Amino acid sequence: MIKPKQVVILGSTGSIGRMTLEVIDHLNKHFRVFGLVANSRWKLLLKQVNKFTPREVGLTNAQAAERLKASLRRKQARIYHSLEEIKQMVTHPAVDIVVSAISGAEGLLPTLWAVQAGKTIALANKESLVMAGDLLMSEARRRKAEIRPVDSEHSAIFQAGHCGKPGEIRRVILTASGGPFYRLPSRRLRSVSVKQALNHPTWQMGPKITIDSATLMNKALEIIEAKHLFGLSPRQIKVVIHPQCIVHSMVEFRDGSTMAQLGYPDMRLPIQFALTYPERLTRPLGNYNIISDEPLRLSFEEPDTAKFPALRLGYEVLRKGGTAGAVLNAANEEAVKLFLTKGIRFTDIAELTGRVLNRHRVVANPVLADILKADRWARAELLSLRAPNKKS
Amino acid sequence: MIKPKQVVILGSTGSIGRMTLEVIDHLNKHFRVFGLVANSRWKLLLKQVNKFTPREVGLTNAQAAERLKASLRRKQARIYHSLEEIKQMVTHPAVDIVVSAISGAEGLLPTLWAVQAGKTIALANKESLVMAGDLLMSEARRRKAEIRPVDSEHSAIFQAGHCGKPGEIRRVILTASGGPFYRLPSRRLRSVSVKQALNHPTWQMGPKITIDSATLMNKALEIIEAKHLFGLSPRQIKVVIHPQCIVHSMVEFRDGSTMAQLGYPDMRLPIQFALTYPERLTRPLGNYNIISDEPLRLSFEEPDTAKFPALRLGYEVLRKGGTAGAVLNAANEEAVKLFLTKGIRFTDIAELTGRVLNRHRVVANPVLADILKADRWARAELLSLRAPNKKS
Repeated sequence: MIKPKQVVILGSTGSIGRMTLEVIDHLNKHFRVFGLVANSRWKLLLKQVNKFTPREVGLTNAQAAERLKASLRRKQARIYHSLEEIKQMVTHPAVDIVVSAISGAEGLLPTLWAVQAGKTIALANKESLVMAGDLLMSEARRRKAEIRPVDSEHSAIFQAGHCGKPGEIRRVILTASGGPFYRLPSRRLRSVSVKQALNHPTWQMGPKITIDSATLMNKALEIIEAKHLFGLSPRQIKVVIHPQCIVHSMVEFRDGSTMAQLGYPDMRLPIQFALTYPERLTRPLGNYNIISDEPLRLSFEEPDTAKFPALRLGYEVLRKGGTAGAVLNAANEEAVKLFLTKGIRFTDIAELTGRVLNRHRVVANPVLADILKADRWARAELLSLRAPNKKS
Repeated sequence: MIKPKQVVILGSTGSIGRMTLEVIDHLNKHFRVFGLVANSRWKLLLKQVNKFTPREVGLTNAQAAERLKASLRRKQARIYHSLEEIKQMVTHPAVDIVVSAISGAEGLLPTLWAVQAGKTIALANKESLVMAGDLLMSEARRRKAEIRPVDSEHSAIFQAGHCGKPGEIRRVILTASGGPFYRLPSRRLRSVSVKQALNHPTWQMGPKITIDSATLMNKALEIIEAKHLFGLSPRQIKVVIHPQCIVHSMVEFRDGSTMAQLGYPDMRLPIQFALTYPERLTRPLGNYNIISDEPLRLSFEEPDTAKFPALRLGYEVLRKGGTAGAVLNAANEEAVKLFLTKGIRFTDIAELTGRVLNRHRVVANPVLADILKADRWARAELLSLRAPNKKS
């Protein structure tokens, strides 16, 4: 008899949250849903509660929490919306694994709670590491919380890393699809529409990360994430454009051997690995063979950082350290929101974010309050820059 | 202070043997040459003895042993040529690692001695596993001898295997360069010259393995080698043509994740890994980065078994078991010798070898005597078939 692991999913109605529930559905001998946390999508949450019978459900939107409560039979689950109660759920002694899949800066606090409670974290919310990597990683070491990456690139590095010891890693190679505009002439990048930017060639993801993928800001965030997860220096992180999205990333060892992880673009694989590690369990029926009778061609090329300046911002943050990551993340989040509501152009996202980062006075060794302050400052600063022509 | 490991190299004057000495030269804090074994190239051996100061040197050719002895100062090393003395060297209690790099069936006995003495074997001599895989692997288990592959493909699988547990492997993908004739029209294959066949596009190797690589017999032998090393069924071994020779092989796990090992074609990497495992040590100066500013393109395609029937013979041996491997290996060795001396055509190699395999009555669960008998029978049988037109 296997004792099923108790799982809390932060962001259960988002793209990663829904796929996590699919994985758990197939591995229902191994995992039980202890709690679900979402923002306001109570109708979807209702279905999830009926299917997975969690013990507790948190909605950060009070009105949505009331509507969910009204739709459920009494005793089906505890429903609440206060942050204090959500914190109690995440840190409950019965919980084994917390899947951190809230999108954006909102994910930081609950991830930190889980880390401080010594839980195993399946981390999809890269923003928490970008904002507060030093803090999260040192807390994780202190509390013996295990952080397992869910991002496909970092999962690939995590997997490939098992072919050697941490000190034997010379470099990691983060692969990037290049997004929908990689072949577009630079001059046309300025005028791409929201609809075009939301149409990613290979990955099905939420809107924020899809835009980040089109600007290559996603890769900038991943550079920072990789630094914290694997303890790397900026020179140990290289990005390469790989349009086929089959090789999810690579690790170069000091003896000259390079290990790569390959698979079809499907987040259910890294999600499952983060849940089942150190085991690998059989996945539901489907063809996962990347080597078949059909020819396969893979290509890798140097990224164009002149065309996609967001990428450079990732390295800039690594050099600056401290609160720079929180600023990059917050400014970018606001810029993406503005782009999605047609308030700025596509190329303004990286441009404005870079300007905010430049204006920021970095606080070294920040505590949580410094990070949250830098986050607020960057958002306000970006909004103040939104109409640069008026200001200059 | 590191206590250096004592190494015996079987076949020190061959391609793998010479590269092993290069690796040891660079890692001379970690390894000492205890003994060298070669056939007759005493002049090269003299240089090796002067440079690496082994305690013992065995030459299977008595005359060459005498000439080496005459060229060395007394007490520089013990020189001998009897098999009994070579056996004593290989099994000497001071020896930690035996590099088995004799080409062909000649490598079987000394490899078996090393296994039975519980040594760690760096195995380049794939023929010993092809001939006597069941015997060698069961002896290795019994004597706790560790067999580490040196073949680049099997080293890749060995490395990638660390990303999961043995029972979690669904399939291994052996990559094949395709050799120099992969794109040649079938009808022209019959008339390729020895010189053309010895001109491998990527790997620098000895003549026997270079011809095996051109016929794809090398991959047939590797299928059998993989079966024994990793305990796989025929359906768990797939071959794919990968002309760039960058991905050395892959492992597919049951969760759908595929791990690949990449590197420039250079046998010093798998040799070093077999010596230093479970550590990875820095290699001498050189550019080992497969991901650089230059674009990289990798392709994979289904092998053409109609054009290269040797490949099928590997699977046939897996199905037949017992002495079939010894027969395939011996018949092929004789056929390659005949081709190199222009006694048969290129396409006759696989054709005649296949006919000998068909005529063989397999002995199940063979002991060493059965294997050696099958080897002798196959050689004689192949020679009797060498002029098929006269016989039919």
